Amino acid sequence: MFTDKSCTDFINMLASGSPTPGGGGASAMVGALGVALGSMVGNLTLGKKKYESVQLDIKVILDRANKLQNELISLVQADAEAFEPLSKAYSMSYGTDEEKNKKDTMLEEALKQACRVPLEIMEKSLEAISLHEELETKGTKIAISDVGVGVLFCKTALMGASTNVYINTKLMKDREYAGIINLQVRKMLQEGIPKADNIYITVMSKIT
Amino acid sequence: MFTDKSCTDFINMLASGSPTPGGGGASAMVGALGVALGSMVGNLTLGKKKYESVQLDIKVILDRANKLQNELISLVQADAEAFEPLSKAYSMSYGTDEEKNKKDTMLEEALKQACRVPLEIMEKSLEAISLHEELETKGTKIAISDVGVGVLFCKTALMGASTNVYINTKLMKDREYAGIINLQVRKMLQEGIPKADNIYITVMSKIT
Repeated sequence: MFTDKSCTDFINMLASGSPTPGGGGASAMVGALGVALGSMVGNLTLGKKKYESVQLDIKVILDRANKLQNELISLVQADAEAFEPLSKAYSMSYGTDEEKNKKDTMLEEALKQACRVPLEIMEKSLEAISLHEELETKGTKIAISDVGVGVLFCKTALMGASTNVYINTKLMKDREYAGIINLQVRKMLQEGIPKADNIYITVMSKIT
Repeated sequence: MFTDKSCTDFINMLASGSPTPGGGGASAMVGALGVALGSMVGNLTLGKKKYESVQLDIKVILDRANKLQNELISLVQADAEAFEPLSKAYSMSYGTDEEKNKKDTMLEEALKQACRVPLEIMEKSLEAISLHEELETKGTKIAISDVGVGVLFCKTALMGASTNVYINTKLMKDREYAGIINLQVRKMLQEGIPKADNIYITVMSKIT
C-alpha cells in the first residue's frame, strides 16, 4: 500500500516517471491531511471547559472526520488501482479492425472506471469542507488558523480530483455519459469552492 | 523525523491533539507533494523524441524541483522544532512583574522565530509555482492535468504557510517588526496566487 510508505518515499514515488501514484491519489492524500487538521482542532477543543456547550457536537465531528480520513487514505491506493486497466488499454497494440475495436471498447470502459475514484475523492472532500464550516464556529479559538489551512487542503483535494475526472471524460467517445459525469463534477465544485473560500476568508478576518 | 513516518501515521499524528505537526508542517508537506507532481511531469517528458527541443530545460527544472522537494520535506520537521520554544514560552507561569516581563520577552522572541519556517515554506512554494509555469508549456501533454494539480498544491502550501505567519505576527508586541513580516507575506501572496491561478486556468482550458 502506498500510504504505508514513509512520507519521503511516497513523495519520491510521486516524483518518479512511474504512472502511479499520480495527481488523483495525491489529491486524496491532501484531502486526508485537510481532514486531519480538522480533527486536530476538534481534539484540542475536546474536554475544554470553555467549550463545554459544544462538546457533543465536537464528538460527532471527530467521529465523522475519522471515518473520512480513513476513506481518503484508502482512496490513495484505490486511485492507483483504478488506473491500471486504463494504462493496459492504452498500451494495447492493434493491427486489424477487430483489434482496434477491442482496444476502443476496453479504453472506453477503463476511462469510465478511472473516473469513479476521483469522483469519490470529491464527495469526501466536499463533506470535509462542511466539517470545517462547523469547526470554524465551534472549535477552539487557539487553533483557528488550522481550520483555515485544513479547509484550503480540502478545497484543493476537491479541485485536484476534479481535474482527474475531466482528463478522463474528455477522452470518452460516449459524450452523453461524459456530460453526466462532468455535470456531477461541476455541481460539487460550485458547492464546495465558494463554501471553502468563505470559511477561509472568515478565518483570515480573525487572524489578520 | 516526522517525514520518516508512514503517510498514515503522519496523518494520524496531525489529527491528534498534540501541537506538532501542525498547519505549517502540513503546508510544507503539501508543497513537497506539489513539487513532486511537477517532477513527475518532467520525468515523463525526459528522453521523449517529441520533446527533444526542451530536454535541456527539463533537466534544469528537474534538478531545481528535486532540491525544492528536499527542502520542503525538511521544513516539515523544522516547523515542528520552531514551535517548541513558542509552546514553552506560552506555558511559563508568572507571579511577579519580573517573571511576567521575562515571559513576555521569551514569547516575543519565540513568535519571531516561529515565523521563519513558514516564511521559508512560502519562498519555496513560490519558486515551485514558477517551475509549474515552465512545465505547463514545456512538459509532456499526456501529463498536463498533473501540472494543474501540482500548481494547486503549491498555491495551497503558499497560502497555508501564510496563515501560519499571520497567526504569529498578530500576537507580536513589536508592531513595526510584525508589519515588515506581514508585508513580505503579502508580496509573496500577491505574486504567487494570480500566477498559480493562471497556470491552473490554462491547464483547465486544455482539458475541458
